[in-house]
Amino acid sequence: MKPVSSPTDPVVIAQELVRCQSVTPADDGAQAFLASLLEEMGFKVTHLPFGPKDAPTPNLYARIGTQGPHLCFAGHTDVVPTGDGWAHDPFKASIQDGRLFGRGIADMKGGIASAVAAVARFLHSHSLHGSISFLITGDEEGPAHYGTKPVIEWLSERNDLPDFCVLGEPTNPTVLGETIKIGRRGSMNADITIYGVQGHVAYPHLADNPIHRLLNVLNELTARKLDKGSEWFAPSSLQLTNLDVGNTATNVIPDAAHARLNIRFNDCHEGKDLAQWIEGVVARHAPKNEVKIAISGEAFLTQPGVEVDALKEAIRDVTGLTARLDTGGGTSDARFISQYCPVAEFGLVGATMHKRDENVDISTLEDLTQIYFKFMERFGL
Amino acid sequence: MKPVSSPTDPVVIAQELVRCQSVTPADDGAQAFLASLLEEMGFKVTHLPFGPKDAPTPNLYARIGTQGPHLCFAGHTDVVPTGDGWAHDPFKASIQDGRLFGRGIADMKGGIASAVAAVARFLHSHSLHGSISFLITGDEEGPAHYGTKPVIEWLSERNDLPDFCVLGEPTNPTVLGETIKIGRRGSMNADITIYGVQGHVAYPHLADNPIHRLLNVLNELTARKLDKGSEWFAPSSLQLTNLDVGNTATNVIPDAAHARLNIRFNDCHEGKDLAQWIEGVVARHAPKNEVKIAISGEAFLTQPGVEVDALKEAIRDVTGLTARLDTGGGTSDARFISQYCPVAEFGLVGATMHKRDENVDISTLEDLTQIYFKFMERFGL
Repeated sequence: MKPVSSPTDPVVIAQELVRCQSVTPADDGAQAFLASLLEEMGFKVTHLPFGPKDAPTPNLYARIGTQGPHLCFAGHTDVVPTGDGWAHDPFKASIQDGRLFGRGIADMKGGIASAVAAVARFLHSHSLHGSISFLITGDEEGPAHYGTKPVIEWLSERNDLPDFCVLGEPTNPTVLGETIKIGRRGSMNADITIYGVQGHVAYPHLADNPIHRLLNVLNELTARKLDKGSEWFAPSSLQLTNLDVGNTATNVIPDAAHARLNIRFNDCHEGKDLAQWIEGVVARHAPKNEVKIAISGEAFLTQPGVEVDALKEAIRDVTGLTARLDTGGGTSDARFISQYCPVAEFGLVGATMHKRDENVDISTLEDLTQIYFKFMERFGL
Repeated sequence: MKPVSSPTDPVVIAQELVRCQSVTPADDGAQAFLASLLEEMGFKVTHLPFGPKDAPTPNLYARIGTQGPHLCFAGHTDVVPTGDGWAHDPFKASIQDGRLFGRGIADMKGGIASAVAAVARFLHSHSLHGSISFLITGDEEGPAHYGTKPVIEWLSERNDLPDFCVLGEPTNPTVLGETIKIGRRGSMNADITIYGVQGHVAYPHLADNPIHRLLNVLNELTARKLDKGSEWFAPSSLQLTNLDVGNTATNVIPDAAHARLNIRFNDCHEGKDLAQWIEGVVARHAPKNEVKIAISGEAFLTQPGVEVDALKEAIRDVTGLTARLDTGGGTSDARFISQYCPVAEFGLVGATMHKRDENVDISTLEDLTQIYFKFMERFGL
C-alpha cells in the first residue's frame, strides 16, 4: 500500500483514488487503500465481497463508534470506462489551471476523498459522540447486483443500520452547493414482443400484422398522462427507446414486432402497478405477446427534516448558496439505501461526469470537505 | 441441346424445363431449350440479353406469322430458390400419384410448357391466319429491371406490339379454371427515417425522441382509409413491414428511428400521389426526415372485352367452370406489358408456388394446353 502523507487533504486522497484504474468491475487497490486510511483513523473495517466466488464484487463497510447517532457516508470506487480522446491521462490525476483531471474524480472518488478528509479532521478536533461509518461498493456503474444492495441488507440483518446516510454522488450541475437530491424517480424497462401471423403484403387478410398491433399498444401507452408530478417530483415520463422487427423483405408481413420502453416514475406510482398496466394494454391489443418488465428501482423520497436542514445549513455556511432539494436525474445506489435508511445525496459538480477529461475544480474538494465537516457537527456527532 | 420427343406433350416439355436449374438469375439452358423447340416449329427466335454485359438477363422473343391478329404468350423461365425440406428433388421433375413435382412447375414453367404444346398442336392442325409470339424472360423473380420491361419497349420501338397478351402465371388458387387476372394492384414501398436528438431517458426534455415522432407518423398513415375499392379492385391496403431503431442501451433516447411500409393500391390512385401524401405526413410530424419511395408498379386493368370473353369461353369448354375476373394478389410482369398492350393472366394452380415440394396435377397441364388451344381458335388465328 502506498503511504498517505496527508489523510486530511482531500486532493491527495482523491489523486490516490484516481490512480487506481478501477473501471467497473475492476478495483485495482482502491478499496484496500481506503481501508488502510480508515483503519489508521481507528475504524473497524469489514470487507464484504458478494457475488460469484471467482469474481466477487469488492465492498467495504467501516465503522467507528458504537453509539447513536450513526451517520454513514456511502459511495462507490468503481468508475465508467474512459472512452477515447482525452487530453489528460485519465488515471494520472494531473492538476492543471486549478483543476484535477481523471476518470471518476467527479463521479465519485472526489466525494469519497472529501468525506474521508472531513472525518479525519473531525476525529482530530472532536471527541466522537455517536458513530460514523463508510459504505463503499465497487459496483455502482455496473449491474449493481452485488454492491450496496446486499451490504445494506447485511447491515439490516445485524441491526446496524445508520440513522442517516449521505451519498457523495455529484449532485451539482454547475456550482458546488446548488443541489441536494432527497429522492430519485423510479425506473423500469419493458420489453414488449407482439406475435402475429406472417404473410405476403398482397394478402394482408391471410396474415396478422404484429406491427399494426404494436402501434395500437404504443399509442395507448404513450397517450396516458401518468401524473402531474407531486410535491417533490416532476411528472413521470415514458420514453420509447427501441423498435425492432428485423424484416428485410419488402413484400412480407413479419411474424413478430418488438419495442422497448423506459418509465421514470415518481412517488405517485409503484413499479408493479405500472407493470400491470403495461401488461394489460399489451394483452388487450395483442393476445399473443411476451412482456418482460425490469424494475431498476422504485421512486423514493427522504422527507426533508432536521438532517436535510442540517446539510443545507452546512452548505450555506461554506458556499453561501441555498441548495435546491431535487429528485430528478438518473438512478443511483440511494435506491437501495432508501429501502432501509433515510438518505440524501450531495457531492461535487457533475458537469464532466462520464465524459472525457472528467475534472473538478480542486477548491471544490476542500469546500466539500468543509461542508461534510460542518454537517457532522450539526448532526450531533 | 437435349432432343425432345413430344413437342406437343406439355408434361414432357415441363419436365425438361424443371430440370434446368434456373434459380433466378441463373438460366441453365432453359431459354436455349425453348428456342430450339420454337425454331423447330418455324418461329423466328431473337435472343434479347439486356443489362450488365458481364451478366445480362436472358430474354427471348419468338414470332411466327407476319399478319394480325397477333397473340403473344408471355412468361418467365426463372424460379425462386428452393429452400429446405423438400421430399422430392426440386430439379428432377418426378411424377408421383399423378402430380409433377419441381421448383417452378406451377410458377411458371408448366404454363410455358402448356403454351408451347398448344401452339405446336395448333400449327399441326390449322393454317395460321395471324401471328403467334412468345415473350420469355429470365428475370421475373429477381429485380426484373432487364426482363419483360425492356423487351416490351423493344417491341414497341419496332412497332411489333401484340394485339393481346396471355401471361401464364398460376392464377388459380385451388382449381384450374377459377380465376383470370385482368389487372393487378400497384405496389410501392416507403422507407421512412426520422431524426431526433439523442439523450438520456432521465432527461427527455433535453432530447427529441424520434420514436415518438415516428409513432405519430405511422398513426396518421395507418388511420387513413385509402379507398373503398373500385369496380374491379379490392380496397387499397397499407402494411407496415419493418421497424428498426437498433438502440441497445435501455437508458438512451436514440437519435433516429426507421420504418418501412408497403402499399398495394388500386386504380383509384397513382403512385406519385401516394408518395406525396406520405412525404407530407412525415414532414408534418417530423421535419428532420428522409423518405425513400420506390414504386414497383402502378395499378393497371385490362377492360374485359372480346379477348377476355374468348378466354373465359375456352376455360368453360375445357373445365366447365366460369372463371372469376380478378385483380388481387402480388405483382407480375403484366405490369410492364399492360403499359403497351392488353394482357390477361391465366395459368396453372398456384397453391404450392414458392413453397417446398411445389407441384401440379399433371392432368392440369393437358387441360391448360387445351384451354390455350381453344383460345387461339376463338382469338381468330
